[in-house]
Amino acid sequence: MNLLYAQSGGVTAVINASAAGVIEAARAQSGRIGRVLAARRGILGVLAEDLYDTEGIDLTRLAATPGGAFGSSRFDLPEEAAQPALYDRIFAVFEAHGISMLLYNGGNGSMDVIGRLSASARRRAYPLVCVGVPKTVDNDIEGSDCCPGFGSAAKYLATSMREAGRDVASMASPKGSLFVMEVMGRNVGWLAAATALAARHPDEAPHLVLFPEVPFDEAAFLERVQAVVARLGYCAVTVAEGIRRADGALMMEQDRDDKGYVQLGGAGEAIVRLVYEGLGYKHHYASPDYLQRAAGHWVSAVDRDQALAVGRVAVELALAGRDGTMAAIRRLSEQPYTWDVVGVDAAGIANLERRVPRAFISADGMQLSEAGRRYLSPLIVGEVPVQCVDGLPDHLVLDCPLLQKELAPYASLE
Amino acid sequence: MNLLYAQSGGVTAVINASAAGVIEAARAQSGRIGRVLAARRGILGVLAEDLYDTEGIDLTRLAATPGGAFGSSRFDLPEEAAQPALYDRIFAVFEAHGISMLLYNGGNGSMDVIGRLSASARRRAYPLVCVGVPKTVDNDIEGSDCCPGFGSAAKYLATSMREAGRDVASMASPKGSLFVMEVMGRNVGWLAAATALAARHPDEAPHLVLFPEVPFDEAAFLERVQAVVARLGYCAVTVAEGIRRADGALMMEQDRDDKGYVQLGGAGEAIVRLVYEGLGYKHHYASPDYLQRAAGHWVSAVDRDQALAVGRVAVELALAGRDGTMAAIRRLSEQPYTWDVVGVDAAGIANLERRVPRAFISADGMQLSEAGRRYLSPLIVGEVPVQCVDGLPDHLVLDCPLLQKELAPYASLE
Repeated sequence: MNLLYAQSGGVTAVINASAAGVIEAARAQSGRIGRVLAARRGILGVLAEDLYDTEGIDLTRLAATPGGAFGSSRFDLPEEAAQPALYDRIFAVFEAHGISMLLYNGGNGSMDVIGRLSASARRRAYPLVCVGVPKTVDNDIEGSDCCPGFGSAAKYLATSMREAGRDVASMASPKGSLFVMEVMGRNVGWLAAATALAARHPDEAPHLVLFPEVPFDEAAFLERVQAVVARLGYCAVTVAEGIRRADGALMMEQDRDDKGYVQLGGAGEAIVRLVYEGLGYKHHYASPDYLQRAAGHWVSAVDRDQALAVGRVAVELALAGRDGTMAAIRRLSEQPYTWDVVGVDAAGIANLERRVPRAFISADGMQLSEAGRRYLSPLIVGEVPVQCVDGLPDHLVLDCPLLQKELAPYASLE
Repeated sequence: MNLLYAQSGGVTAVINASAAGVIEAARAQSGRIGRVLAARRGILGVLAEDLYDTEGIDLTRLAATPGGAFGSSRFDLPEEAAQPALYDRIFAVFEAHGISMLLYNGGNGSMDVIGRLSASARRRAYPLVCVGVPKTVDNDIEGSDCCPGFGSAAKYLATSMREAGRDVASMASPKGSLFVMEVMGRNVGWLAAATALAARHPDEAPHLVLFPEVPFDEAAFLERVQAVVARLGYCAVTVAEGIRRADGALMMEQDRDDKGYVQLGGAGEAIVRLVYEGLGYKHHYASPDYLQRAAGHWVSAVDRDQALAVGRVAVELALAGRDGTMAAIRRLSEQPYTWDVVGVDAAGIANLERRVPRAFISADGMQLSEAGRRYLSPLIVGEVPVQCVDGLPDHLVLDCPLLQKELAPYASLE
C-alpha cells in the first residue's frame, strides 16, 4: 500500500510545503502506508515511470523551498476513451510500484484528472484512492475559501507595491509620474486585488487597480490618473495581465508560441504607453513575472500553514477512503481569522474558475471594496523566518535517484 | 550651528538608514549641533525653503523604510557662473536657517554639487562644511569600496533569480524554456553581476549574465543558451538594461520622453525575442524595475549597517571641518569581511563612474569570475527582521510640517 504524490501545473512558493505535509503525514502512518513516492514532473513522470522515493528527504528544507521540488508539467490527461493506452500505462506503473493512493497537487484542471483516474480505477477494479491537494497563485479554485500559494504571492505583491510606492512617492514632482506593476491573472484579478492591501489610506499606492473582471474604460482611467497626479505628483497602478477592453479584446499584445500557446504579458506596458500618449507623464513599469509566485523569502505564514495542512489532511482523506475528494480550506470566522480543512468533491469543482466577485471591487471598478479587503486581509498575515547561507535562502535541490524501473521504457509524449 | 540633510537622485532601500545615521549622530552632538533639518526633495527643497525639522522622527522606523522619506529629485545644480542667482538663493536659505553643515546623500553627480557649494561658500566667506553621504544601487561611485543601497538590491536580485530559477527548473522540459530577468544598470553591470551569486554550481540559475561592459555577441550567446537548454531543459539569463552590441548600439528600444530623457527598459524583452526567433523556446521575462531598489523587506544587513555608518561618520567629518569630503567605505579584509568608513575627497570622484572590472567577468564575458564572486559575496550577507502590521512592512510616512518660511517665495524651477 504505497502512496504517490505528484505536482501539476504552475508552481508556487509553498507547493513544497504541501509536499512536506503529505510526506510527513504519510510517514506518521507507517503502519498503514508503505513507501511514499513522488512522480517526477507530474503525470509525465508516472507515464515515464520516473518516481522518487521520498524517504531521506529533509522536510523542513523541502517546505522552505519554492517551486516544485519534484518537477511539474502542464500535461492535460485526455479522456480515457480517446487514449486508452495512456491509462493502461498509468495503471501498469501504479501496479508495478504497489500504488494505491494518489495525491495530486494542482489547480482546477488537476481536479479533473483526479476524477478521470478515479473513474478509470473503478472500471478496472484497481484499488486506488485519488485525493486532490489544491495549489494556485491565482486563487481561482472553487470549493476552497482560498488556495495555498495565493496568500504568499499576494503578500509579496502587496509588499512590492507598498515599497515601490515609497520609491515613486520620493521622486514625485509637479510634472507627474506613473508607476505600473503588472501582475499575474489571465482571467481573474485576485492578485491584482491583493496589491490594494498595500494602501493604508487613499493617498498610498496603488491608487488604481485594473481587474480582468471589469472592462477597461480608457477615458475614465485617464481621468482618474490625472486626478491622482494632480493631488500627489505621481500615480501607482496595478494591472492584471488579462485586462480587456469593453469589446472583450485583450489590452496586451498577444504572442503565440509554436504550440499556439498565448504568452501573456504586456498589459502593463500597454497602460504605460496609453498614459504617456494621453498625459505625457514620465513612467516606469515593473513586471515581477515568476518572481511573484516563487518568492519563498517572503511567504505568508497563514498561506504556508494552509499549504502544509491541505497536504496533511489529504493523507487523512486518502486513508479514510475518500476517493475523488480535494482537501479544501474553509473559513470559520473572520475576526479573528480561523479556518480548517475539509474534503470536498473534486469532480464538482473541476475546470471551474472563481473570479473576483463584483462586491469585492469598488463601485468605480478601479479599487478593492471594503468587503474585498475583509476577505483578503487575513491571507497575507505572518512572516516565516528564512534559513540563509551566505545571505541567500538555502533551497533544497533533490539529489535522490529515481527508482529502479520495473516496466519497459515508454516513448516520451514530448 | 544647524545641520541640513538632503537626499538626491534615485533612492534605495536603505537611504533612510543613512538619514537615520546622520540624525542620530547629530542628536548625540547636541552641544555642537543645533537643529537637525532636512530638505524636501533635495536641492529643490533648499531653493523652495521647504525644510523639515527632524526632531520628533522615530529613527528606528525611518531606518526601516525604503525610498527617500524626505523626497528626492534629479535636479542638476548648474555652475555658479551660469546661474549665480540660484546660489544666492541657496545661501540666503542657509543663512535664514543658521545652516553651517550640509550633508548631501547622493551618487556621483551629488559629489559634484558638494564641490560647487563648498567653493561658493568659500568665495562668499560663508561658514559651511559640505560632506557627501554616498548612495546608489548601481555601485558605481569611485572612492568607496561599495555603495550603500547596492548590497540590498544585489541581495534582492540574487534571491529573486535563485527563486525564479527554482520555478523554471520545476517546469523544465525537453522542449526547452528561457527565463530572462532584466536588472538596472545603464552603463555598469554590478547588479547583473550580483545575480550570479544565486548559482551555487553551474547548473543553477542564472546560467548566463549579460553585462553592459561586454559587447553583446548574438551568435555566441545563442550557442550558449542552446547548450544550457540541451543539458537542463531550461536556461535562466540575467540582462543588464544597458547592454550594447559590438557597434555600441543599445539592445533595448529607446523611448525618449518630452524632456528628451531616455527611459531604459526592454533589453530583456529584446533578448527574449531574439532567443524565440532563433531557437523557438517558450519564454518568460521579468523586470523588477523599482522593486529591486525599494525592497526594504529583504535588505542586506551588511548594507544596512554601512548605510547607517556612512551617515554617522559624515556627521563626524562635518564636525571635524572636513569640508568637501565623502564618507567612503573601505574594505579592510575579505575573510572575514571587515570594513570601516573614512573621508575621501569628493571633488576627486565626482561624476566618475566605476564599471565592473574585466577581471570580475569570466573569460567568455557571460558569467561572474571567481574574483568577482569574492568581491560581491560579503555585501549581501545578513537578514534584518522586518516590523510588520497586518502582514506588511510598517513604513514610516513623514507627517511633520515644513518649517515656517523666513524668505520671500521662490519661483519653482519645475
